[in-house]
Amino acid sequence: MARSAFSLGGLGSGFANNEDELRTLAHHGLSHSDQLIIDKSLKDWKEVEYEVVESVQWTFDHIGDPEDIRSDGELMHLADFMARRELDLVINLPMRGGSRRVSSFTTHGYRTRRLAVDYAVPLVTDVKCAKLLVQAMHLCGGVPVMKTHTDCMTSRNIIKLPGFIDVHVHVREPGATYKEDFASCTAAALAGGITMICAMPNTNPPVIDRASYDYASALAGVSARCDYALFMGASSSNFDTVSEVAPQAAALKMYLNQTFSTLTLDDMTIWQKHLQNWPKKMPVCAHAEREKTGAVILMASLLDRPIHICHVARKEEILIIKSAKERGLKVTCEVCPHHLFLSTSDIDDIGQGRAEVRPVLFSPEDQAELWKNIDIIDVFATDHAPHSVQEKNSEKPPPGFPGLETILPLLLNAVHEGRLTLEDLINKFHRNPRKIFNLPEQPNTYVEVDMDYEWTIPQAMEFSKSKWTPFAGMQV
Amino acid sequence: MARSAFSLGGLGSGFANNEDELRTLAHHGLSHSDQLIIDKSLKDWKEVEYEVVESVQWTFDHIGDPEDIRSDGELMHLADFMARRELDLVINLPMRGGSRRVSSFTTHGYRTRRLAVDYAVPLVTDVKCAKLLVQAMHLCGGVPVMKTHTDCMTSRNIIKLPGFIDVHVHVREPGATYKEDFASCTAAALAGGITMICAMPNTNPPVIDRASYDYASALAGVSARCDYALFMGASSSNFDTVSEVAPQAAALKMYLNQTFSTLTLDDMTIWQKHLQNWPKKMPVCAHAEREKTGAVILMASLLDRPIHICHVARKEEILIIKSAKERGLKVTCEVCPHHLFLSTSDIDDIGQGRAEVRPVLFSPEDQAELWKNIDIIDVFATDHAPHSVQEKNSEKPPPGFPGLETILPLLLNAVHEGRLTLEDLINKFHRNPRKIFNLPEQPNTYVEVDMDYEWTIPQAMEFSKSKWTPFAGMQV
Repeated sequence: MARSAFSLGGLGSGFANNEDELRTLAHHGLSHSDQLIIDKSLKDWKEVEYEVVESVQWTFDHIGDPEDIRSDGELMHLADFMARRELDLVINLPMRGGSRRVSSFTTHGYRTRRLAVDYAVPLVTDVKCAKLLVQAMHLCGGVPVMKTHTDCMTSRNIIKLPGFIDVHVHVREPGATYKEDFASCTAAALAGGITMICAMPNTNPPVIDRASYDYASALAGVSARCDYALFMGASSSNFDTVSEVAPQAAALKMYLNQTFSTLTLDDMTIWQKHLQNWPKKMPVCAHAEREKTGAVILMASLLDRPIHICHVARKEEILIIKSAKERGLKVTCEVCPHHLFLSTSDIDDIGQGRAEVRPVLFSPEDQAELWKNIDIIDVFATDHAPHSVQEKNSEKPPPGFPGLETILPLLLNAVHEGRLTLEDLINKFHRNPRKIFNLPEQPNTYVEVDMDYEWTIPQAMEFSKSKWTPFAGMQV
Repeated sequence: MARSAFSLGGLGSGFANNEDELRTLAHHGLSHSDQLIIDKSLKDWKEVEYEVVESVQWTFDHIGDPEDIRSDGELMHLADFMARRELDLVINLPMRGGSRRVSSFTTHGYRTRRLAVDYAVPLVTDVKCAKLLVQAMHLCGGVPVMKTHTDCMTSRNIIKLPGFIDVHVHVREPGATYKEDFASCTAAALAGGITMICAMPNTNPPVIDRASYDYASALAGVSARCDYALFMGASSSNFDTVSEVAPQAAALKMYLNQTFSTLTLDDMTIWQKHLQNWPKKMPVCAHAEREKTGAVILMASLLDRPIHICHVARKEEILIIKSAKERGLKVTCEVCPHHLFLSTSDIDDIGQGRAEVRPVLFSPEDQAELWKNIDIIDVFATDHAPHSVQEKNSEKPPPGFPGLETILPLLLNAVHEGRLTLEDLINKFHRNPRKIFNLPEQPNTYVEVDMDYEWTIPQAMEFSKSKWTPFAGMQV
């Protein structure tokens, strides 16, 4: 009989009848753990299950009990184990009708159970339940398939949200994979609660025709960890051909301002050709600051086609979009978290060079106007634009912030503060992006959020290669 | 009897019965001429009219007749007299049924008559007509009142046109009268066939409120030689007050681009306030280049008010205006002669510094697009922007061309070349400006043009203080 260590439910264990079987069994068991128990089986006579256990020495906070003096470096605090998720399951039975004590006295057992709850570590407090669990795990032969929203109850405020959609992401692949690539970018997206991204075309080479689309698409197919769609870039010369790829593309992106791109369109006659040729049912997105916002809305409306304005950031921009919507023009718009949560007054904290972004950060007045007109905003999108820390600290820092891993916490914090409703969040970060970009449903895809969990955004997030964030230090 | 010299029809002449009357008569006569004949009257016995005459010695071109050797310095060529308009009337009778000569021979008399016709000097060739003319002048007692379009026939192609209206003129008064003032500017206008101007508000002080309007209006009232109206300037702060002057003003001018002005409006929220507050029935004019053209058209259309785009110069601008008009938006536009008749290919000839103008001169492609869309253009206007020659030749030449005295010849030349019709000219330089700017009729005001007269635009025109022109050397 072989049994691999630290694997619940009999995973990697079994019986062998001869040396060959034992060899196979041992090989299998060692693939699950680096420790294996092998012993003679007593099967059919008396079944005994061995388990490899490791006793953990820990200590509690010194809470008035003179025995609990912690000698740092030797003993870990139980809370540390919990925080590091080094415990998968806590089984701890309270005294049932045991000796009564004064209410100020808390046992080690009580504190253990309390910590398990606080750190959301599964806790079993009833001996019958513990037995049932073990039996059930044995029956299902491994890690149980669990749907937390149907199989669990929790005292925490866990809510289930749809998989979010970020329609404005710079993946940097192909061309600058040292900054980001499909693998790291989509990992960051998933870590941020985003299950679908639309990737911008200002890569190297830019995605402006069938060949470059196929190239980028192949790269994405290899390493993307979540669903994605690719933008086509409008160039000064591809207005007659780019629409061939429209059925496969997320949308057409028109860069009307100078930015981190080679795709800037300098002339309204070129805009017109693109707006005319791209299929009316497919979205066109424009980086169009200031008067260009107005000009491109006019041109789209003259051609009777919808237009989506990217990363609206100024008061004058949101107000003209508001007027256009009030008159029934087919315009939609998106706003980025850094324009909602940062302004010129944060530049000193972020650092002049690192704070470079396009559109730039604007005044608190502009920022306030975005919040005032939050109902006008159709879409939240990150404009995730990763650059290396070295680049951002350099003499000529390229513009752009990473954002995938921070957008949801920031927006949820706004919900917490009452500046947004959850309905707003779902509309602007899931339903509207789907509708505007004709994106397919992602069945059985959702995000669970603990609404009470508070943390401070660190200096850098875990998955993006862009190891900094302008939101560092924010409490969310 | 007194008779003043060189005054036809008895002007300054009369009879005196005593010394006092003679004194009065002589005083009156000398006010018409510096020579006076005084003699005893033979009135009622035999009336004799004296005339002071001056015999002029002249010569003809040497055309094969050995007698006609011209000694320069002594004798003037007859053609010179004609050209200098030193002859008011030529009376010269052809030989009637006289001796027949070979057809190659032309008499001095024939040549005199021919020159009179060529130089448009009134010519009488019949002795009865000469007598009738003298009698008629005597009867009407002086210079006859003449309406050339009803009383004259001419072999030249003289046409009568309405008084033209230039809605875009920088008078430079108050503030820079060394460049131009109301007197010189309106003289230039009249010399150019323009009988009404709308004066731009970017003076010093700028015309932006009641006080500055009254000040500029008083200056104009003193010295303007033709009708005028004054623009009000939209500033970043006067959106709540400027419309008080609307009933008196030509229109509201909004500077949306950096130009020779302190009135640039940098923010679409300010545009919106001006477009909202200025009365809808009064025109608003915008200096709005490129995307700003589109943005301000959108904003005006969202507020459901008309907008007039100044000096359209680029292909992209005229095309978006075309689209907007096709969709029924209330937009009108003007084009300047320098954008119609000059382009980047003329900059070398004009000189880099002198060629500075806003909007700048664009490519021949842009220029061609203006002509291609001439039907879209509502108004021709000069954007007459005089600067001193010294300034235009300096290191930092200010932008702007004078244009009042050259616009009509240039446009008429385009008519001559078949690029415009006379109807176009009258519509775009008289009817449409009147309609768009609600300008009053100018009764009995017209311009007569000799359509066959050809000349070359000189280095500088006569009346503007800006003693240069970018059109110098053009044959019109």
